[in-house]
Amino acid sequence: MSQLPQQPAGISVPTSADVARLAGVSRATVSYVLNNNATVRISEPTRRRVREAAAGLGYVPHAAARSLRAGHTRTVLLPAAQAPAVPLYQRFLTRLESDLRRLDYTVVQYGSIGLEPDEAARAWAELRPVAVVSPGATALTPYGIGVLTRSGAKAVITLGPQPVDGAHAFVMDQREVGGCAVRHLLSRGRRRIGVVVPREPDLALFAEPRLAGAVRAAEDSAAPALIQPLPLRYDEESAEDLAARWRTLGLDAVFTYDDEYAMLLMRALQDTGVEVPAETAVIGADDLMLGRLLRPRLSSVTIELATAQPPAEIIDRLVRSPGGAPERHYLLRAAAVARDSS
Amino acid sequence: MSQLPQQPAGISVPTSADVARLAGVSRATVSYVLNNNATVRISEPTRRRVREAAAGLGYVPHAAARSLRAGHTRTVLLPAAQAPAVPLYQRFLTRLESDLRRLDYTVVQYGSIGLEPDEAARAWAELRPVAVVSPGATALTPYGIGVLTRSGAKAVITLGPQPVDGAHAFVMDQREVGGCAVRHLLSRGRRRIGVVVPREPDLALFAEPRLAGAVRAAEDSAAPALIQPLPLRYDEESAEDLAARWRTLGLDAVFTYDDEYAMLLMRALQDTGVEVPAETAVIGADDLMLGRLLRPRLSSVTIELATAQPPAEIIDRLVRSPGGAPERHYLLRAAAVARDSS
Repeated sequence: MSQLPQQPAGISVPTSADVARLAGVSRATVSYVLNNNATVRISEPTRRRVREAAAGLGYVPHAAARSLRAGHTRTVLLPAAQAPAVPLYQRFLTRLESDLRRLDYTVVQYGSIGLEPDEAARAWAELRPVAVVSPGATALTPYGIGVLTRSGAKAVITLGPQPVDGAHAFVMDQREVGGCAVRHLLSRGRRRIGVVVPREPDLALFAEPRLAGAVRAAEDSAAPALIQPLPLRYDEESAEDLAARWRTLGLDAVFTYDDEYAMLLMRALQDTGVEVPAETAVIGADDLMLGRLLRPRLSSVTIELATAQPPAEIIDRLVRSPGGAPERHYLLRAAAVARDSS
Repeated sequence: MSQLPQQPAGISVPTSADVARLAGVSRATVSYVLNNNATVRISEPTRRRVREAAAGLGYVPHAAARSLRAGHTRTVLLPAAQAPAVPLYQRFLTRLESDLRRLDYTVVQYGSIGLEPDEAARAWAELRPVAVVSPGATALTPYGIGVLTRSGAKAVITLGPQPVDGAHAFVMDQREVGGCAVRHLLSRGRRRIGVVVPREPDLALFAEPRLAGAVRAAEDSAAPALIQPLPLRYDEESAEDLAARWRTLGLDAVFTYDDEYAMLLMRALQDTGVEVPAETAVIGADDLMLGRLLRPRLSSVTIELATAQPPAEIIDRLVRSPGGAPERHYLLRAAAVARDSS
């Protein structure tokens, strides 16, 4: 087996001086070119020569040294996706990351698993980011926002179901998902509506507002309507238990939190002889492919995350013009998709 | 609306000198305590006083300054999960992240979307990580490994289906998944076996070795067996097209790449009147809950990612004792789970 390339003792790491010598330019020119400094005019052939010299020597600038010189970084911290990863959310972060990179930011995803919110904020601040997008409603306190701002962050933005005081917010208001589902069921004449509440603690951040939105929609209804929360674990035994006592609940419809819970519960209901939708209408959420493969085909709530201005441009604007009042950008658009199960 | 907490002009960022003054200790003591330096004995009450002073002032050390002083960081770069996120892989990274943090490393996830492999290596090197875990087989070249090593990385480790020359490797050998599936189908007396190959380019990294493992298992079989690759997009139309010409293919079994493709294809086959398993046996992979909810219940290949020594400890050992020959750690364990579809 070959040895790992090691740096032999006595041979030093290539420096910008080495690059300058090889390219026949000054160290300042090397710095301008490799840091994409647009304020200095340097010809394209010179830029190319510097880049080739750097590539040939394997020289890379030191982000830490650069950020110390500049007093700040071009680093934007994004939340690392945690399991369970919601595909929609994952796609949103992926898009945001590539858009920020096009705007010449360095994007670093930073996990906060096992850290208290204030510990997480201090860990983030150590990287001296110019902007932080913080996940969830619970992961940032006013203290944490202060730590980040004092460390030089120009924009602190939460990404979650609710805004946090003192920070900008991308708000994914999950109440709208529950609201859509229940309004759809009401429009089909259903009045006694179960709402599945997953027992998995990771999902509470989504499940609680989805339930709250369902309750609100029932309250706003002209016809009297009942909402019955239904705690459920994501396993067959829990679903069979619920199906076994289904008829004692006297429900004529159920919003199942999402399509995967819909598949779980619909299978248990059908195995018990409960007819869908005749006896009980079922609607899920997230509009996954699997819902279209079920029989009856599953009704769902389709969700989009979108802002009028692309989120990366909003972040860039907040970094360039800090100090304004906290902004709220509502990302989540929901709409019921009626199929055969409701 | 409240204003964002801004740093008023003329009021400076808290420094370690401020912390030292408030705690009544030297700056060196502040540095020892906040950098968890274990070589210096400092009493627990003093440590607490320093931490409280730092918390009260909102002081955080500057990672960049610390890494310049130390000449290296305690940063480990992990690959950011990309869509589509495989839950198993996501759980592996989550576990690795929290284990590394317990070993006092700073874990940063770094996306490489839209970057060429060598660009990615240079971007990673700018953060001067002490170790890099690089995703996929394609994301690291010998040049990139050299750039990272010269920038001070003690351990460069790939995480993917195949090792890369000159780096350590956590190998997730997906061939074993296809091998398990086909050996199971052969054991049921099936001899003409279709293998679904997803058309989604993101999945090629998994799909190609799964197919290769299936082919190898058929070659190794005592009874003559045929493998027929079946390209399939993850949509209903593509599945219906395949189901419509199913009987002309003359296959008696199919390995569907994973459980989600199994659900898609099984639905289309059943809608066309093909009986599962009588006419065609079906086996998926990943052993998702949804497979148990299908009728017939779906056979699958269950996959675990495990090493004899926890991966975080392997990384820590490689960081402490760099320079050895490249190590190969095979993570993937696969086993067929027989249910009613095969």
